[in-house]
Amino acid sequence: MKKAILTLIAIGSAAVSFSASAQFAKPEDAVKYRKAALSVMATHNQRLAQMAQGKVAFDAKSALENAEIVANMAKLPWHAFGEGTETAETKAKPEVWKQGGKFKEAADKLQTESVKLVAATKTGKEEAFKSAFTATGGACKACHDDFKSK
Amino acid sequence: MKKAILTLIAIGSAAVSFSASAQFAKPEDAVKYRKAALSVMATHNQRLAQMAQGKVAFDAKSALENAEIVANMAKLPWHAFGEGTETAETKAKPEVWKQGGKFKEAADKLQTESVKLVAATKTGKEEAFKSAFTATGGACKACHDDFKSK
Repeated sequence: MKKAILTLIAIGSAAVSFSASAQFAKPEDAVKYRKAALSVMATHNQRLAQMAQGKVAFDAKSALENAEIVANMAKLPWHAFGEGTETAETKAKPEVWKQGGKFKEAADKLQTESVKLVAATKTGKEEAFKSAFTATGGACKACHDDFKSK
Repeated sequence: MKKAILTLIAIGSAAVSFSASAQFAKPEDAVKYRKAALSVMATHNQRLAQMAQGKVAFDAKSALENAEIVANMAKLPWHAFGEGTETAETKAKPEVWKQGGKFKEAADKLQTESVKLVAATKTGKEEAFKSAFTATGGACKACHDDFKSK
């Protein structure tokens, strides 16, 4: 019975993996996609960073707009790290695929923190925004440290 | 009085224009951003196209996920077409800046249609999805015809 369950899980995992890869015709397409999604996210994250660091005056409306974009973008890149995409031109370390569970945790952490960031920014309180932004930035950094080449 | 109003409008427009450009340190950054945002949108649009064309079976949940991403992405690229970004490496035609009003209308049209696409897809009815997708695709094509080099 246990073996049957494990087999089912294995088939399920393979199906998910195939489905994700099948969404891109070529590994290069997946790499282009994830770079594009991460780049758009980084642009809006940098705008938030300027406010968090006091380089630009805190503006609750602008902060919320940017935080919502970051939270939306944070959902996207991960399905483009499918098997077979580690061989294309990428700054992703082999650990993305060797430590898939840890990578998924790091991706999930960013998504959780960016949703919290939106909620904190909605309060309109600068300190709440700054605190949540620090946590979101920490999730970015932790994942880059472990999974992205310099 | 009329002159004073026109002056105020001119100052207002200049402020908006400066503010938008000021969000990117260099014209190249704006071009990179808008290409990335349009590229992510195109990926999800293509997935919808495959369903609309019957190459992939219609799946209401997947269609809605992709439609929502298209609608979110459709809001982003336009502020990166600021003045000074027409000189960078770009497929954007000079008409983007020469016919700014018409370009804005085209960008607005895509946003309107993509919001309608989300609503139509939420019905779960394939025909409603297909019809709205045709309108969204039409908005993409009309803008590319007028404002994007081959």
